[in-house]
Amino acid sequence: MENALKIYQDTTKKLKAFHLAMFLHGWDSSTEAPSGCMGFRSLQLGTLSEMFYRTNTNPDYEAAIETLYQSREQLELVMQHEIVEVRKNLIKTKKIPLADYVAYSELMAKVYPIYVEAKQTNNYELYKPYLRQIIDYRIKYLELQKTETMKGYNIFLDEFESGFNIEDYDHFFNTLKERLVPFAKSVAKRKLIYRKAFTKKQFSVEKQKAFAKYLQEVFCFDAKRTVIKESEHPFTTSNGTTDVRITTHYHPDNLASAIFSCIHEMGHGLYELQVNPALDFTQSGGGASMAMHESQSRLMENMIGRSEVFWTTHFHKLQELFPKEFKNTTVHDFVKYVNQVEKSFIRTEADELTYSLHIMIRYEIEKLIFSHKADLDKLPDLWNKLYKKYLGITVINDTTGILQDVHWSQGMFGYFPTYALGSAYAAQIYHAMNKDLNIEKTIQSGTLKDIAQWLSTHVHQYGASKDPKTILKLATGEDFNPNYYVDYLIEKYSKLYEIQ
Amino acid sequence: MENALKIYQDTTKKLKAFHLAMFLHGWDSSTEAPSGCMGFRSLQLGTLSEMFYRTNTNPDYEAAIETLYQSREQLELVMQHEIVEVRKNLIKTKKIPLADYVAYSELMAKVYPIYVEAKQTNNYELYKPYLRQIIDYRIKYLELQKTETMKGYNIFLDEFESGFNIEDYDHFFNTLKERLVPFAKSVAKRKLIYRKAFTKKQFSVEKQKAFAKYLQEVFCFDAKRTVIKESEHPFTTSNGTTDVRITTHYHPDNLASAIFSCIHEMGHGLYELQVNPALDFTQSGGGASMAMHESQSRLMENMIGRSEVFWTTHFHKLQELFPKEFKNTTVHDFVKYVNQVEKSFIRTEADELTYSLHIMIRYEIEKLIFSHKADLDKLPDLWNKLYKKYLGITVINDTTGILQDVHWSQGMFGYFPTYALGSAYAAQIYHAMNKDLNIEKTIQSGTLKDIAQWLSTHVHQYGASKDPKTILKLATGEDFNPNYYVDYLIEKYSKLYEIQ
Repeated sequence: MENALKIYQDTTKKLKAFHLAMFLHGWDSSTEAPSGCMGFRSLQLGTLSEMFYRTNTNPDYEAAIETLYQSREQLELVMQHEIVEVRKNLIKTKKIPLADYVAYSELMAKVYPIYVEAKQTNNYELYKPYLRQIIDYRIKYLELQKTETMKGYNIFLDEFESGFNIEDYDHFFNTLKERLVPFAKSVAKRKLIYRKAFTKKQFSVEKQKAFAKYLQEVFCFDAKRTVIKESEHPFTTSNGTTDVRITTHYHPDNLASAIFSCIHEMGHGLYELQVNPALDFTQSGGGASMAMHESQSRLMENMIGRSEVFWTTHFHKLQELFPKEFKNTTVHDFVKYVNQVEKSFIRTEADELTYSLHIMIRYEIEKLIFSHKADLDKLPDLWNKLYKKYLGITVINDTTGILQDVHWSQGMFGYFPTYALGSAYAAQIYHAMNKDLNIEKTIQSGTLKDIAQWLSTHVHQYGASKDPKTILKLATGEDFNPNYYVDYLIEKYSKLYEIQ
Repeated sequence: MENALKIYQDTTKKLKAFHLAMFLHGWDSSTEAPSGCMGFRSLQLGTLSEMFYRTNTNPDYEAAIETLYQSREQLELVMQHEIVEVRKNLIKTKKIPLADYVAYSELMAKVYPIYVEAKQTNNYELYKPYLRQIIDYRIKYLELQKTETMKGYNIFLDEFESGFNIEDYDHFFNTLKERLVPFAKSVAKRKLIYRKAFTKKQFSVEKQKAFAKYLQEVFCFDAKRTVIKESEHPFTTSNGTTDVRITTHYHPDNLASAIFSCIHEMGHGLYELQVNPALDFTQSGGGASMAMHESQSRLMENMIGRSEVFWTTHFHKLQELFPKEFKNTTVHDFVKYVNQVEKSFIRTEADELTYSLHIMIRYEIEKLIFSHKADLDKLPDLWNKLYKKYLGITVINDTTGILQDVHWSQGMFGYFPTYALGSAYAAQIYHAMNKDLNIEKTIQSGTLKDIAQWLSTHVHQYGASKDPKTILKLATGEDFNPNYYVDYLIEKYSKLYEIQ
């Protein structure tokens, strides 16, 4: 047992060292690496991955995990949870024959440029045979991973959100169907009236950066342990709790884009910063799950960052930086602007109210695919029919329809639902937090210190040392309940759109 | 043999993968990593170093090297050279007992802050006992590494410049003593007359960056394979020939600083870019030696970058960027400014003419230390005496005297001489290149394409696949001859200072 623990800890150290290399590579390649370097570097990355794989599947390490698993009652709580998770993942990894793994990786590399071309040229037929191959591999994968207690699409759902299955998600999305779909349709018929002149202005990137710095203070995004930089697509990455990095993309003609992407990524980042630092040395660091991570970014971006009270507190700073651009603009104009609901074909551009309906459509299609009830030849029709049904939109082409998201071309099924679940977690967590704090008052104080502290205590500190369902219950005192989310949306948008 | 080659190549791949990690870490930590991240990261680095060490001393790898070494006549030329070098380094590594290695690393970590304090407070006595410990370790190291054919200080010299020993360096520095010391003294008595008003101006960092971009074009520093960024101290780093990065530091009150550090680092960088790309996959990539690397940076910085013809060609660009700052300044004023000789205590601020005399002083002291003829108690006196003798300067305190350089506190002895040797190589290479090209005419053309091409063919392409002495002979047709260097300096400064 003692020996097993030593082997386990030594291997963890090695895996963490490889993580540093991959963290630095990912950050570098997305922000500043020269375009010509990737050929040679990809060979080095291949070798690093191979060394990582060998470390992770070393027979001594495997044996140690098994020993620890058998005597897990004697372990501390964090290790008890960790060893179950690590063992589960290792068993899954080992079920995939090396030949399949290699063939699948090659397929992935081949598909990406084809997907991009298909999207650019509105050509689903070009993409279809590859999508079929991907799905065939994923079905084969599900067969390999099938157990007594879990099979089919549930396996994917569980991989992205441990403990959530079709039943859970159906319950969630049915609530949205019953309560949110009709409400969203009634909102979409109305128009927000506000002075829009400022939306046509150009906003200096230097000043936008200054505002990002200001937001960093407000959101307590510790400058000593973070980097904020630019990249094509915004993202968050971290190496433990002492090095958390986010990126944004500044658009001179769209001030809101960088503001809300920055707040969104700081939400993710604050989670990583506030995990118990002792977990840096374990395999239980980082966020608990995809949806729990998304809950933290959405809570900051939408529930706090787009609230009226947030902007009555901070709009003066924007006006100070952009006096000409915001001449004659009131804070109410700005709040309406950043909360307007618009029928949109594109998920990533969707407003807060309709976002999860885009996700619901993808969830329904994925369920059909993996219960063998979807006809790939007619997938665009299915897509378009569901957009009509739930969003009242007539999709005009596949580029803005079924080809808009990269996920399926990367074999990622079961991931989308976590985006919507995250928003719903956020509403439930917000509701619980509001019992302990007066959130509006806290926001008015100018700093989100108390909110960061509450999230640290009730969510962040646990890292991945507990399941998301457990953390949600600890934080909110109850099981997942999607009605908080729908209640929040209906209340917010009824007020904004003056619906009785 | 075939099996040995496979093991050798597989291990090389792994070592290259670790190199990527260390390259990214070094770059990141010097340019943008958050200050708080190093505690946790240093543990990961420790693990990476340990994995690197184990890979490098794996018994199978060692046996493969021995097999290849025994049959080296059957190997291709590059591999023949490489296997000799790799075997030599491995034998050296293995001669150090692990306990010594650990104790020495600990000492190094302890000394640095003490060295910094001693320098800041002008307190040699504080530093002295640690310097003594470092020297004792280095003497022990020399004992361990002693062979039939090499012992003492020669071992250090050979490590930094393969093939160069005390005899070679004595010959070099004696030439400087005889010819350069008296000339430099006569120059130091004179003053360059020029309009200096521009030296008191402030120069916008944004515009300095624009000039760096311009220089990047002039020096053919391929934008697709390079990054130029900022850091506290300028440096060059690379990951093979497809990713070469330099930094500079912009001073608003000193335009020349960033210009010449940028050109200097591009000289290093161009070398790395132009190594035969096939060597990326071997252990013979990168530069041939410290001095050969320095020769390329000094050739670009001093012989080209500070030449009159360079500035008659490019001064218009500076004037275009800084019209106000350079009002009433002629190109001749600027050329005098960047070439003026000033008595300086500080090596890193020394002018081109006297730089190597600073190095000569360090070389003499190092020789005395490792022949047990230096009294550490009186080392500052020795330092000051030599500054008086060779540079005619009375050193005012140890901060600007013996404590100015960090090298000895890091155990680096035998390194300094390569700085001066590099300048001397540069002059000999320039002389040879000028027979094939008309260098002045090439500079006037506005691009250094032909010079880059010549250096690629005659120096860069070989990487570390040959010894520096061999490359110098191939490039210039003769053995090292320090007179080219002295001739060049005397000609340049006689003209500038109007000395007949």
